[in-house]
Amino acid sequence: MMRGNAIVGQSGGPTAVINASLCGVIEACRQYPEIERCLGMRFGVQGFLESDVIDLYQEAPETIEALKRTPSSALGSCRYKLRDEDFPRLLEQLQRFNIRYVFLIGGNDTMDTIHRLEEFCRKQNYPMLGVGIPKTVDNDLFGTDHTPGYGSAARYVAISVRQAGMLARDMRRVDQFVIFQTVGRSAGWLAAASALAKSAEDDAPHIILVPERPFDRDKFLADVKRVYDKFGWCSVVCGEGITYPDGRPVSQATVTDQFSNVEFGAMGGTSAAMMLHRMISQTYGWRGEFQVCESLQMCAADRVSEIDLEEAYACGREAVRLASEGVSGMMVSIRRESSQPYRYRLDTVPLAEVAIKAKPMPDEFISAEGNYVTEAFLEYARPLVGPLPEYVRLKGYKVGA
Amino acid sequence: MMRGNAIVGQSGGPTAVINASLCGVIEACRQYPEIERCLGMRFGVQGFLESDVIDLYQEAPETIEALKRTPSSALGSCRYKLRDEDFPRLLEQLQRFNIRYVFLIGGNDTMDTIHRLEEFCRKQNYPMLGVGIPKTVDNDLFGTDHTPGYGSAARYVAISVRQAGMLARDMRRVDQFVIFQTVGRSAGWLAAASALAKSAEDDAPHIILVPERPFDRDKFLADVKRVYDKFGWCSVVCGEGITYPDGRPVSQATVTDQFSNVEFGAMGGTSAAMMLHRMISQTYGWRGEFQVCESLQMCAADRVSEIDLEEAYACGREAVRLASEGVSGMMVSIRRESSQPYRYRLDTVPLAEVAIKAKPMPDEFISAEGNYVTEAFLEYARPLVGPLPEYVRLKGYKVGA
Repeated sequence: MMRGNAIVGQSGGPTAVINASLCGVIEACRQYPEIERCLGMRFGVQGFLESDVIDLYQEAPETIEALKRTPSSALGSCRYKLRDEDFPRLLEQLQRFNIRYVFLIGGNDTMDTIHRLEEFCRKQNYPMLGVGIPKTVDNDLFGTDHTPGYGSAARYVAISVRQAGMLARDMRRVDQFVIFQTVGRSAGWLAAASALAKSAEDDAPHIILVPERPFDRDKFLADVKRVYDKFGWCSVVCGEGITYPDGRPVSQATVTDQFSNVEFGAMGGTSAAMMLHRMISQTYGWRGEFQVCESLQMCAADRVSEIDLEEAYACGREAVRLASEGVSGMMVSIRRESSQPYRYRLDTVPLAEVAIKAKPMPDEFISAEGNYVTEAFLEYARPLVGPLPEYVRLKGYKVGA
Repeated sequence: MMRGNAIVGQSGGPTAVINASLCGVIEACRQYPEIERCLGMRFGVQGFLESDVIDLYQEAPETIEALKRTPSSALGSCRYKLRDEDFPRLLEQLQRFNIRYVFLIGGNDTMDTIHRLEEFCRKQNYPMLGVGIPKTVDNDLFGTDHTPGYGSAARYVAISVRQAGMLARDMRRVDQFVIFQTVGRSAGWLAAASALAKSAEDDAPHIILVPERPFDRDKFLADVKRVYDKFGWCSVVCGEGITYPDGRPVSQATVTDQFSNVEFGAMGGTSAAMMLHRMISQTYGWRGEFQVCESLQMCAADRVSEIDLEEAYACGREAVRLASEGVSGMMVSIRRESSQPYRYRLDTVPLAEVAIKAKPMPDEFISAEGNYVTEAFLEYARPLVGPLPEYVRLKGYKVGA
């Protein structure tokens, strides 16, 4: 094993368990005396380019251990797309800090970063091993059964939709519908996970809209009406990135206030949930609400899925173990061995493949009508999210007057 | 004690602990043999008028016990304002179901309902005892130190702002601000509670806007800039009902989509947070997000404050005990005896007073500049919310290159 330092960085949007992966990397590095220090990039490669580097071995062991239950990106994150001219500078930094092991925790852009850096170093004859650790609440990384971070965000979504669904049911004589929006621009994995909230037929959610299917306004409004006629209220969950058949986002709208008349563009925003809310209330005259939690679903450490936490930590450790065996240019992946009972093992996938491919929901996970998920999806998602809190419902023994 | 049935109902928006009060009522009724049955109104007085009445003694005891941890309004709720012509019909219903004890769990409209019903029955010489049980996440009920439901909603807000604040801090090289909106049309108690999320100076929240103070756009934008210059990011929490000095809601806006040009009014909505988001991004060109959780903060049973749960249950029991002693026309109230350590005792306040008065935040709880809370507020709120989850932060031992 090469003697030298390791460095670890975090990129892209945080998750509730990305720091568990960080903890795994640091704790595993300690087991290899050849790894002299485990350094951390502040704010990913962007900070690394600026020499914003910290020594993680100097942190108190209790702090490192507590990272497992600390949400967000303890090192700071970035969304920096490397330019070709950055590579010589990166190599200089690796030499300067005597780094032989690079671990990045992130999504496909991050995997692309390690992949290109690893290739550049090889060409420059600088011995370095680079291993990627998967992370994204969106679950759209290629080459792994699922990504650390997804299970916990999915759990946040399912708990929220279960609780708000009970509220909407009990308030149906006041408000007639509720819309919950999840993150996930191009994949519907999180919106789909809301289906775990349902145990009885009338439970929320009733309609799930994913970006994998074009949004059909007329069908949507008819679906909402059908649900309302049956139950007296309606719960809709939508992914933020749903689009019309011609590709325009449902969230597209212009907003003017009392001061000026400026169109919302990249800066600022309306949301898909708001536009759906408006369609329903204007078509049927119903009252309702829309819920847009944004990054709250990425950092709810108190709603973490225990298996997600375990896997995130294990992926961090595994990256170091792989590097100790000379593996490079790979991302740790999770292979499912069984759903009931749930069993997984860690595997690898070439970074080059992860970097260029995405993973939308497959057809067999989306209902034929495109407005809900299938039993196959529920079997897939259930073990990742873990058991949800159970609540009771009164039987309601009617009293004859 | 009069022999006859009791009836209990729930009104207005749910809370995470309103069913604990319901559980308290049912369990306490069982201790008085004079109370032959404890009935439940489905959907409040509205359901009662329609004879939608259930027998709660027939429910399994485990179900009643589990109500304590079940969010939303298990009986169903309503927002029905009684008309004068409803009272004879209500009296008829009381006679029909042989009801001598009426317990309603709700806010000031609900207290008004019992108050008027109790008066009407007295004039009609129908012996009946009516006691109110306080409930509202908004904490704006007069005559009680605080309301059951507030502590748990406040806890949801504080946890959310703490977690999202860490995320915003760690993502500050990508996004520069985050806005969290709480419910509470005319009182800022919930927005204020977000201040409990802060332990270090740079922690979220940095700015808190409450409806008790007029919104000053220029000052707000200057405040945001000052925070950004200091920390590199900014966290804002606002109550949904903040207004300009002339009374117009900050949330007021017109929205047009690609299909039509219709103004948002009562049906549909923009939100104060969205408008603040827009002001910031258009003024400074920053990226950020707004979070609008709406009723999610009213029904998060997994984030309940334990003291809130205890008090909600105790208030339910106390209402029955009071009625057993012949008390009527009162609402159970909570009197604080000490903040450190927190001690309370139950008391009463006349329904007539609760019905007509509201309780905005007092001046001593709002900072002089009107953009944050005071230490006095934190002392008030801390015991109601309970200890928050603690997370770690890396010390960050910089490595010299």
